[in-house]
Amino acid sequence: MIPRYSRPELTAIWEPANKFRLWFLIEAHACDAQAKIGVIPEPAAAAVWAHGDKPYDENRIARIDAIERETKHDVIAFTTELAEQVGEDARFVHQGMTSSDVLDTCFNLQLVQATDILLSDLDRVLAALKKRAFEHKSTVTMGRSHGIHAEPVTLGLKLAKHYAEFDRGKARLSAAREEIATCAISGAVGTFANIDPFVEEYVAEKLGLRPEPISTQVIPRDRHAAFFATLGVIASSIENIATEVRHLQRTELREGEEYFSKGQKGSSAMPHKRNPILSENLTGLARIVRSAVTPALENVTLWHERDISHSSVERMIGPDATVTLDFALNRLAGMMEAMVFYPDVMRETVDSLGGLHNSQRVLLALTQAGVSREDAYRLTQKNAMQSWSEGKPLKDLLIDDPDLRAHLSAEEIAGLFDLGYHTKHVDTIFKRVFGEA
Amino acid sequence: MIPRYSRPELTAIWEPANKFRLWFLIEAHACDAQAKIGVIPEPAAAAVWAHGDKPYDENRIARIDAIERETKHDVIAFTTELAEQVGEDARFVHQGMTSSDVLDTCFNLQLVQATDILLSDLDRVLAALKKRAFEHKSTVTMGRSHGIHAEPVTLGLKLAKHYAEFDRGKARLSAAREEIATCAISGAVGTFANIDPFVEEYVAEKLGLRPEPISTQVIPRDRHAAFFATLGVIASSIENIATEVRHLQRTELREGEEYFSKGQKGSSAMPHKRNPILSENLTGLARIVRSAVTPALENVTLWHERDISHSSVERMIGPDATVTLDFALNRLAGMMEAMVFYPDVMRETVDSLGGLHNSQRVLLALTQAGVSREDAYRLTQKNAMQSWSEGKPLKDLLIDDPDLRAHLSAEEIAGLFDLGYHTKHVDTIFKRVFGEA
Amino acid sequence: MIPRYSRPELTAIWEPANKFRLWFLIEAHACDAQAKIGVIPEPAAAAVWAHGDKPYDENRIARIDAIERETKHDVIAFTTELAEQVGEDARFVHQGMTSSDVLDTCFNLQLVQATDILLSDLDRVLAALKKRAFEHKSTVTMGRSHGIHAEPVTLGLKLAKHYAEFDRGKARLSAAREEIATCAISGAVGTFANIDPFVEEYVAEKLGLRPEPISTQVIPRDRHAAFFATLGVIASSIENIATEVRHLQRTELREGEEYFSKGQKGSSAMPHKRNPILSENLTGLARIVRSAVTPALENVTLWHERDISHSSVERMIGPDATVTLDFALNRLAGMMEAMVFYPDVMRETVDSLGGLHNSQRVLLALTQAGVSREDAYRLTQKNAMQSWSEGKPLKDLLIDDPDLRAHLSAEEIAGLFDLGYHTKHVDTIFKRVFGEA
Amino acid sequence: MIPRYSRPELTAIWEPANKFRLWFLIEAHACDAQAKIGVIPEPAAAAVWAHGDKPYDENRIARIDAIERETKHDVIAFTTELAEQVGEDARFVHQGMTSSDVLDTCFNLQLVQATDILLSDLDRVLAALKKRAFEHKSTVTMGRSHGIHAEPVTLGLKLAKHYAEFDRGKARLSAAREEIATCAISGAVGTFANIDPFVEEYVAEKLGLRPEPISTQVIPRDRHAAFFATLGVIASSIENIATEVRHLQRTELREGEEYFSKGQKGSSAMPHKRNPILSENLTGLARIVRSAVTPALENVTLWHERDISHSSVERMIGPDATVTLDFALNRLAGMMEAMVFYPDVMRETVDSLGGLHNSQRVLLALTQAGVSREDAYRLTQKNAMQSWSEGKPLKDLLIDDPDLRAHLSAEEIAGLFDLGYHTKHVDTIFKRVFGEA
Repeated sequence: MIPRYSRPELTAIWEPANKFRLWFLIEAHACDAQAKIGVIPEPAAAAVWAHGDKPYDENRIARIDAIERETKHDVIAFTTELAEQVGEDARFVHQGMTSSDVLDTCFNLQLVQATDILLSDLDRVLAALKKRAFEHKSTVTMGRSHGIHAEPVTLGLKLAKHYAEFDRGKARLSAAREEIATCAISGAVGTFANIDPFVEEYVAEKLGLRPEPISTQVIPRDRHAAFFATLGVIASSIENIATEVRHLQRTELREGEEYFSKGQKGSSAMPHKRNPILSENLTGLARIVRSAVTPALENVTLWHERDISHSSVERMIGPDATVTLDFALNRLAGMMEAMVFYPDVMRETVDSLGGLHNSQRVLLALTQAGVSREDAYRLTQKNAMQSWSEGKPLKDLLIDDPDLRAHLSAEEIAGLFDLGYHTKHVDTIFKRVFGEA
Repeated sequence: MIPRYSRPELTAIWEPANKFRLWFLIEAHACDAQAKIGVIPEPAAAAVWAHGDKPYDENRIARIDAIERETKHDVIAFTTELAEQVGEDARFVHQGMTSSDVLDTCFNLQLVQATDILLSDLDRVLAALKKRAFEHKSTVTMGRSHGIHAEPVTLGLKLAKHYAEFDRGKARLSAAREEIATCAISGAVGTFANIDPFVEEYVAEKLGLRPEPISTQVIPRDRHAAFFATLGVIASSIENIATEVRHLQRTELREGEEYFSKGQKGSSAMPHKRNPILSENLTGLARIVRSAVTPALENVTLWHERDISHSSVERMIGPDATVTLDFALNRLAGMMEAMVFYPDVMRETVDSLGGLHNSQRVLLALTQAGVSREDAYRLTQKNAMQSWSEGKPLKDLLIDDPDLRAHLSAEEIAGLFDLGYHTKHVDTIFKRVFGEA
Repeated sequence: MIPRYSRPELTAIWEPANKFRLWFLIEAHACDAQAKIGVIPEPAAAAVWAHGDKPYDENRIARIDAIERETKHDVIAFTTELAEQVGEDARFVHQGMTSSDVLDTCFNLQLVQATDILLSDLDRVLAALKKRAFEHKSTVTMGRSHGIHAEPVTLGLKLAKHYAEFDRGKARLSAAREEIATCAISGAVGTFANIDPFVEEYVAEKLGLRPEPISTQVIPRDRHAAFFATLGVIASSIENIATEVRHLQRTELREGEEYFSKGQKGSSAMPHKRNPILSENLTGLARIVRSAVTPALENVTLWHERDISHSSVERMIGPDATVTLDFALNRLAGMMEAMVFYPDVMRETVDSLGGLHNSQRVLLALTQAGVSREDAYRLTQKNAMQSWSEGKPLKDLLIDDPDLRAHLSAEEIAGLFDLGYHTKHVDTIFKRVFGEA
Repeated sequence: MIPRYSRPELTAIWEPANKFRLWFLIEAHACDAQAKIGVIPEPAAAAVWAHGDKPYDENRIARIDAIERETKHDVIAFTTELAEQVGEDARFVHQGMTSSDVLDTCFNLQLVQATDILLSDLDRVLAALKKRAFEHKSTVTMGRSHGIHAEPVTLGLKLAKHYAEFDRGKARLSAAREEIATCAISGAVGTFANIDPFVEEYVAEKLGLRPEPISTQVIPRDRHAAFFATLGVIASSIENIATEVRHLQRTELREGEEYFSKGQKGSSAMPHKRNPILSENLTGLARIVRSAVTPALENVTLWHERDISHSSVERMIGPDATVTLDFALNRLAGMMEAMVFYPDVMRETVDSLGGLHNSQRVLLALTQAGVSREDAYRLTQKNAMQSWSEGKPLKDLLIDDPDLRAHLSAEEIAGLFDLGYHTKHVDTIFKRVFGEA
């Protein structure tokens, strides 16, 4: 996470003001719960809200930092500052709780906050892809396998493919959000020895979380491993579409270009030098997000009821992976919204091999006209090779070939070169992907 | 995937006999579909089933291999051999399809087959953990954070934690199964130019799959990335419990041991040398399963409508990850079923620090008896440190301390050392985890 | 490691015949050493060689397997079979040694054997790249940054870049070979309690290894981590050149193609469908080799004097990474040896933008002719943009531009379009890379 | 890289002041070189030094930032600010160069600077390990394999093992420093079309770098992959020793403890609660450093002469991996310098199994006394098992066993329990590791 690749909405989640606010909410709701079951006086809980329910501004944060420098314990520094705000009743705060109750629940809350933004980021990406897909539903372009021209598709189909992929990513991220939306207030080793399970249930409900069924001071880290792995898969989908854009913008294709503002310069003198720098950048950002997956997997194993080896990892990958992915998704959405496509160039490319991509269809037509598969193959292949080596349109060669004309009329042959043959099921696919066409 | 760490149930999925059988089913169901929409004659489809619906034994596989050595194309070799079985009508097989239609659908079917076994493996692990958890629901043992004695828990809670973790793993694997249970029969670039979408729908339904909403010769690889990531998280959970076992079996703990058969020798002469080799082995196997995650993430990006860079990766990680995880889960289940626990040693360990783990509770009792928090802390800490340095039970020291006795009676002090304080919510937690206690 | 991506030279290293042979050599040399220092009788050592120094054929391996099924211990099975060959004197074999002395030294020997082949593989790759680089030292081709035409380079330079990269890879692999060419015969915890360090020194020297300065039953695994990381970097270099080839073979570039044998078919009817399947395959194989790096790094941490968590990992990544890399390097070498390049197409591409790539040079010439940088820029840019949008050669436009002709003559302008300007330092670079030009 | 895990020495390398200073040095030396070959006037080069050779303070950096906000190009912003300092002669700065010439050379310079600090960090770690190793050269402690007591070693040997491992790490890092100490000033596609190779050679020499033999606008990224992989291996070595410390500090072992300052509190009331938080933290930091390896490997592949996908990755892993590793090495050094060991506890542990660890030696003594291996085994095993199950010292049991006494005298038996047997080669090993004993 570096400023260059960060949006303030996301970084704010990881800043002290938000962290301390979440700590306060956890502690204050816990006081309410403790009051409800008679462990602490109701007025004390009320006092915590009355005096503590306000933003953590620079002064409060500076005060907490000052105390932490002395006590070397972040949660004690926090409760001490809170006590200064609340007064006498503050002694009921944090009762029966351990630091991890606050820290782990807060970390999950931060991940939930981040995920909610990431989900809306995905919505923006999906909206852009859908809009452009419908815009180019019928824009014919060459389909390529292995980088080699194959058969025509439409640009809309290309975009629909990525839409479907990000839509799956969104579904997975929603599931991952559920994974980490849990709350643990269960004490030093998770036995609730010093605090009633009711407190955990109450706080969880207030904060939109579920109680962690079984915790051991810490919330189990397989949840987080699954979460970061999900971010990694979404990152890979970003690389996938970024790679498509990089290809389309190659000088030799020029079928699409990242939007270039009027004044923007790709190169000092060469006007064609418009580099796909956004998509190249996204390719790198995807690697960064993915790099959180392995440490998150390694974090699952903790010694006995807990060790703290996971903590330093999470202090970094928590912000890094979510902030970077948020930035990348927004960059991607903006890029796709503004992306310039060149349908004419695409069409020229489709035609550039003289209709060779219909050779399979010719073959099929011949067999249906009663020619044996072997003969049909020989007849087609002969003309296709000539078309390829001499650069003549396949259709013309076929029409001029008496052997072939013995089985198919010129009209029939011409009909085999109808582009509609390749696009006839676009609506079907769109309906599958978007629910409409 | 090596024989040493493989079970035949799983390796069979990846062997030619199963692969060709799945290819046959895909082709034969496709023939039925084509017949239903009048593309090929009904009797031809019937003939394919009549003559081809039989196992791929050694002879058939050898024949396919022989043809492949000549044609250098696996699907052509397969259809050629099938034609030898079916006769004339075989020319209708594979019509309008591409090799990838067969290969990708087959790969997903193999993953589904593997997953169904992995899910039952998880059931075995879960059953073992549940059984042992209930058996030791009340077996008190020392809870440790940072490897240091903290407060007591029960062995049942330890096992319940892992149960809950594998139960989440199972839910994720079920979701991942859905991810990869798709079928693509959509032609060279996914446009259905030469085959009706009905065929895909029909074959999918017959094989228990869903049609891939949009494919491009290949099924999109984000599905597989999510799948292998899920296996990686489960592997990490295996390492987590394996690490617990390795710790319990340490000479200094001896609280549990992997089952050692009568004749088995850990060391030639030292009878105590019973090494936790199963759990150590599981730790390594977890790394291998996890190592599939990164290449699977890298596989998501394909050029345009497809390239084949993912294929060599999947030929290895497909079998490797599923076979190794299956082996590991079974080894884990067997290990936990037979694991020997030593409740007496656990109890000795709990008592070994003279009840020091109750010092927090003493502190709380003093404050509730009206002592200020500062004084209560001082009084408790003094005795706790003496207990630690002189090895005397904390309870005895407290009872003998007149300053403390001014606030608490001997009976009250003794009551603070009641283990039930720590285990009073075990049933609550069990109900959360298992739905029963 | 699967047969499809394996060469017998490499797989043989990991097969039982070689493994047992290496075990024999370790044990037999150890006997010699023990005899030299009087621990065992000289005739006993001689007898081991006399009766045991012969290949492990199928019968011997089957016998060892049979014994292992009974004893469940591989080294005991091995020494028992050896005893059957050697007779009475066999009781002196393995004296004072632990299984790990044999296993770890053998693993390193196998890695050394594999590395020696990998080094010769790299030689083959380097030879192919050098040959083709010199062949095309002066073949002008368009240099591209960000996939966009930049300035001309030569194909020779492209290849020289990859040569230099693989040459670095070879140097690193040689260093990595040193890393793992160590021998440990130091007993149960590495103290030489039961065996003299002389034995280790003697065996090491006989086997071309160095004694491990300090071992603890096991050879430290940071050595292996560094080794597998080195393989991973080489794999990435393979992906790098494979990606170049995949790009060159794109239909829109057609500047190069993997060799296509006469009969080979890329597609049934479309003769242009020659897919870069070798380079795509190499891209995937690179991912597999790289996937060994993380588990190798995780293997470094062992508990106290050793645990066996690394073992299962190495049983897989040892063969997998070396065999796959060997296969990939050979495939790469063959691909580059036979690769077909199309200098004419390259030259057309260089000219396709009408000399736009010289605009920077025009700018420079104008400033040198006394034009201010701002005016020079304006003059150049105007013509460059016209060239780009109207598809006219930049040179013609410049010569026709009176504003520009006020500063440069037609000859001077034409001189700025000399390709030699871009290739004048090719020899310098070749000398740096190859030591000759 | 977060402040919590950063040292200012290292973060300074990645801050703007240092970056711009390095850019200045590259540009200014390049001017000198250009002047020497007559491309620019000597006085111009002199002027650049005269007016530009001063620190980049806050004002200068703010000015550059302001310009960059306008031009959106970092190198242009830099040269513009420099022009403001230098005046008219500034127009000769950067002549014939591309931004990458500056950026890539600077990145390598930053890595070299970071590496020089990392090397001195390693020296500190090595010094601490050596000091403590010699201090405890003869401190006997139990060697453990699989977490199970095996045979005695010394604490000095444990530490020497880690010394040797970090010493190898240092050698590898020195080699990696060589890898990335290169300079590229070769122009837009590396052909030196607009700049003489002499400039590159001159600047390289001035900055302590070597000219990159062949670059293509960018320095090849296999160098950086090898570099980050080396950091990853060192990180794994940190985890290795951290894991040893975490084990030693377990409540059940208490053989060592991280230093605890007088006032420091592990837990509010339980004085034994001293958690190995430094070593746990190091375990997590190791994962973070390692997480840079995979993206660095993925960065090797660039399209044609360059794309910019690697850049965003390096902007993060460059600082993250070096700063975090620097912090971790210093934390490790401090931890080992102050680490508290408990030789008495170690000795109690060695004796705790009643000398069972000598059973192998007893076996050997019996065979040397003429007993057959089978009988010797039976005799030893019987007593060893009794010792284990009844908790009686093995020595006593052996001396009381008439069957055994038939072959060995009480003195001979007692002699087998001499600890010196296990430590007799410690000096040999120390000499190997440290060159002295």
